[in-house]
Order: sequence, then C-alpha cells, then structure tokens
Amino acid sequence: MSYRDAGVDLRAAEDLTARLADLVESTRTEGVRASFGSFGGRFAVAGDTELVASADGVGTKVMVATRCGRHDTVGEDLVNHCVNDVVVEGAQPLFFLDYFACATLAPDVGYAVVSGVARGCRQNGCALLGGETAEMPGVYRPGEYDLAGFLVGRRSFDLPPSNELAEGDVLIGLAASGFHTNGYSLLRQLLFDQLGLGPDDPMPGTGRSVCDVLLTVHRSYLGHVRGAFHMGYVRAAAHITGGGLQGNLRRVLPPHLDAEVDVTSWMPGPEFRFIAERAGLDQAALYETLNMGVGMVLVAREEDAEALVAAVADTGCDAFRCGQLRAGSGAVRLEGSW
Amino acid sequence: MSYRDAGVDLRAAEDLTARLADLVESTRTEGVRASFGSFGGRFAVAGDTELVASADGVGTKVMVATRCGRHDTVGEDLVNHCVNDVVVEGAQPLFFLDYFACATLAPDVGYAVVSGVARGCRQNGCALLGGETAEMPGVYRPGEYDLAGFLVGRRSFDLPPSNELAEGDVLIGLAASGFHTNGYSLLRQLLFDQLGLGPDDPMPGTGRSVCDVLLTVHRSYLGHVRGAFHMGYVRAAAHITGGGLQGNLRRVLPPHLDAEVDVTSWMPGPEFRFIAERAGLDQAALYETLNMGVGMVLVAREEDAEALVAAVADTGCDAFRCGQLRAGSGAVRLEGSW
Repeated sequence: MSYRDAGVDLRAAEDLTARLADLVESTRTEGVRASFGSFGGRFAVAGDTELVASADGVGTKVMVATRCGRHDTVGEDLVNHCVNDVVVEGAQPLFFLDYFACATLAPDVGYAVVSGVARGCRQNGCALLGGETAEMPGVYRPGEYDLAGFLVGRRSFDLPPSNELAEGDVLIGLAASGFHTNGYSLLRQLLFDQLGLGPDDPMPGTGRSVCDVLLTVHRSYLGHVRGAFHMGYVRAAAHITGGGLQGNLRRVLPPHLDAEVDVTSWMPGPEFRFIAERAGLDQAALYETLNMGVGMVLVAREEDAEALVAAVADTGCDAFRCGQLRAGSGAVRLEGSW
Repeated sequence: MSYRDAGVDLRAAEDLTARLADLVESTRTEGVRASFGSFGGRFAVAGDTELVASADGVGTKVMVATRCGRHDTVGEDLVNHCVNDVVVEGAQPLFFLDYFACATLAPDVGYAVVSGVARGCRQNGCALLGGETAEMPGVYRPGEYDLAGFLVGRRSFDLPPSNELAEGDVLIGLAASGFHTNGYSLLRQLLFDQLGLGPDDPMPGTGRSVCDVLLTVHRSYLGHVRGAFHMGYVRAAAHITGGGLQGNLRRVLPPHLDAEVDVTSWMPGPEFRFIAERAGLDQAALYETLNMGVGMVLVAREEDAEALVAAVADTGCDAFRCGQLRAGSGAVRLEGSW
C-alpha cells in the first residue's frame, strides 16, 4: 500500500510546485525577503519590521473529525500548524484568518470548528482577525468540509543563512504529540477501510480509541522553542509536515551538507509502531508520510546542543539528539532502523 | 426561485456569523484595531504601521471555470476580491497567499489557476508570498476544486469613524465589470439547469457567450480609487460582495443614518437585466444576491462628490451618484425601480 494507492499523488504535487516557482518569482516586490520553499514567506514592511506569513490546511484530518463527530479540535490543529511554520522562521504569531467551506452549512459544526480555531489562537497569543465561511454544495461532498488558515507573525529572531551551517552541527528532534496533520489519507484508508476499525474501537497498543489517537491536536512548539531561540542556540529549524523528515529537513540544508538522521535515537510512540507494522511501507516511504514522532527539528552547534535540549525539555517537550550535518549534497539520509 | 432553492442558506450563514463574534472577541490582543464585521481586519504592528488583512474565496465561480474548461481567471478574481476588501479600509496591498484544494490534482489545472493568481498579484503590485496545495479526494467532488486567498495590505489612508458620516453625504457607485464573484449558485442553476444553456451558447442580450459573461474578471478598484483616497474625498467605502448593496453598505453605516439608494440612477448591464427578468426574484432579493452593476460604493461629502466622480472616471471606471445618507437607523433602503 502506497500513498498513491490512498489517493494522493505526491509526485504530481511536487511537479506542480516546481512549475509554480516562476509564477511566484514574477510577482516579487521590494518587500519580499523569502517566499518559495521557505516554511513561511517573509516580507519587510516598515523599518526593521519583517512579517512572516503561512497558509495551510489540515488535510483529510477534517474527514476524521466528521467520522468521529468531533469538530472542535481541527481548528486548533490548523492554528498550531501555521504557528509552527512561522516559528521555524524565527517569528512570533500576530494574527490569524480562517476559511471554512462546506457542502451544507450546519451552524453547530461551523461553530465548533471555529471554536477550535479561537482556542488555538488564544493559546498562541494570536488574534483571530477575520475569516470567511462558504457553502458550496456542488464542490464539496455531502457532509464534508474543508478548513484553511492563514497566519501572520513578526520576525523576532534572525537565523543565519543556510550556508553558515557546518559539518558537525547537531540535529535536535522535538517530540510530536501524535500524527499532527500528515498522513491522514493513508491512516484513514488503513484503519477504517483495510482493518475495519470503527471510530470508538481501541487503537491497538495505545490504550486509546481510534478517534482519540487520530484527533490528538497538532502540537504548537511556540512555547517550547522560544527560550532556545532567545538564547541564540537555534541555527535552523524545520517543521516536520507533509514530506516528513526527508522533505522538510531538506528545506533548511545548504547544497554542500547532508542531514544524517539516526532513526534509532528515539522510539516512535505506539500509534506510529502500529501503523509501521501494518502499512507495509518501506522505511523511506514511512518517514516521508508520517512524522514518526518528531514534529520539529532544530539545528544547533555541537557546543550548544546539550543546553538546547535542556531548554526545550524544561518547557515540558521531549527533545533529543537525532543526527548531525555531514559533508554531502543537500540530502537527508536516514541511518539505522528499529 | 430563491437563493435557498439554489442550495445556499444565507440565513444559516448569518446566524453562524453572529455566534462567531464572541469567539473572535475572545482572541483579541493589543494589536487589534478592527476585526469582526469590517471588510478587512486591522492590526497595528510597529509604530504607526497598521496592517489590513482579508480572507476570501470566489464561491462557485470555480464550478463555472470547471464547466467552461477555463481555469486561468478565477485566481485573478480572488486576488481582486481580496484587494477590494483591503482597499475599502484605506490600505494598499502588500502580499497574498493562496490555498488551492481539489479532488485529484491535475497539474495543468493547478498551474492555470495559480497563473491567474500571479497575474492578479502583478496587476495590483502585490507579492505572491506563499500558498498551499491539497489533494483531498474524499472531501471534494470528482473534478472539482476550491480556491481561497489571504491578502495583507498596509493602511495608507485614515477614514473617519462611521459616526462622523452625516445626513446628506452622497453615495457614489462604481461600475462593476460583471457579476464579480457573487450569486454564482443562482446563476449556474438558472442558466445551466433551468434554461439549459451551454457554456458556449450566447448569453441573451449581451453578444457574448455564457462563459465569457460568467467568467468576466472581478474588477480591482485599487487603481480607480487611489486618487480619490489620496485627495481625501472618501469618507467611507463598501465593497459590494455577498449580501449585495444592502448587506455591504450597512457595514459602513452608523446607527443613526440610513443609506438611501436610488436604483434608477444607473442602468445595470444586459447580463443583469436578463437574470432579473428570468430569476423571478423580488427586488430586495435580487439586489442582495447580485451586485447589479455596482461593485463598490464610496461615501463623500456633497461638496466633494463631483470631484470624486471625476477622479474615478478619469481612471477609466464609470462612477455615478446613486443615493445619499438620511436620518434613520442603520438600514439600507432601495428607492425606485427600473
């Protein structure tokens, strides 16, 4: 079973993304500091004020919410996803806007969804500044909805250009709370369709229900990494979302370095181990599809690594060395297996 | 035939919107200057720099694009829609992000859609700073997609608070290029389903095809109103989108004034007259569903009205007096009929 079998063609998405680069470039204005390929686009507004903006969805986690009849958490997932995308660019969230579109508007569902958005905003000190609600029965399947969000932050920390990263720099993994918002097409197909599990059935090995596991909220790393940024320990940061460790770590690498990830340096939670056993994916595909328990990776100098781990751990988020930068060609290599 | 018959329940949307106000309020931070109910949310970032942000979709105009096999204009609609929402708050667009989600990713369609977004950005001097593409076969109907956008602008012009508007202030209508992005559920049902017109059939009375009429790009008023703002003629501005003249003019009125719109003061284009004849809607419903040829309304003092009309007309956009403010209770009243 591959991700393509589950209805998602990552290759087509990547091809399209490559062709869009020229379109993006054609719109460049003097304020643009970074757009294509960064986690959040960067734009200079006034004096030394630089904004960082990110647009995201939560993928088919919305379908799990519908299946489980629990709509008040996907909004929090969405905000936290966007927050992490601007956090890795050194920014603090300022405001958020949402787009909620559905086949037929069930006001209680819409309210529950936005209540999750508002909770996520409050927890991240971010204002919900606007939004749009649309009812489009011809576009959405009956009973389904989609949710997209847009966050603007202000850059507080400068990160060095990627070519200042060096061989021997250390990768620090930060524990994920669960699947976050990636791999849900695979997860739904495997758990619901192939294994025939119901929403309230136990998720094997976890002691929790399928819904509880699948709807665990995408962690916001804002409070967990702010101290480390403030102390200057963070040389680069990657939010591990679609494309997994390989697809996202690659985005912060210079062309002359590889990221070597030792996958034996942490033990993925039981939900990941269960999926790994049953999905029949090879290791590369598995780590491209799921975060495998690591939701963010920070890059630090060797001499700062221990203090960085301690600074993150002090905030209640597990952090661990999970690899290093090596001479190479901008690739991410997974070493070992568990 | 009512808009509800066409599958859209505006009342449910309004009820939900009202309940969301408290949620939005719960997230307020010190930067927020305006959020709920304004065309674009306003947020103060640094010194006297105030940002204006808007989230929008283009509704089921995306389905018309699919029906017509012409995907390179809805992105421009979307950008212009967002631009107008920040323009009426006195802002200049800075950057835009898009969210494109579909059942199955057809890279050529995705590319065409984003090429429209990029064209819209270039024409408005606005950077395309990021975006997200999602493939969600379980959420979207086969062959369909949705498109949402987020725009951030910088406020250049202060508008007076609404309670400084006065009886006798003049309403200036700015000509729409067509249906813009509103009423498409009604238009599709009437033209395609009820009247059995095909995409390439002539749209009666217009000398153009149904596709050409329906896909006419939502006008950006940025270049048409900048001079009028600069000269201080604009006391308030409303972008006429979902909810029509009534729903949008109401948003700029203080509680003690009504807006009296003389609907005989302009002649809607032939596409509007044809729909008016065939849709069987009463006047109020018609003007709530379609912009009826007026895409933006500016409010000016009587002594500035003539100069404002000339300033807009000089830029190539038809502008005309279409009513005035009267003592009242915050209502929009349509006077006359054609």
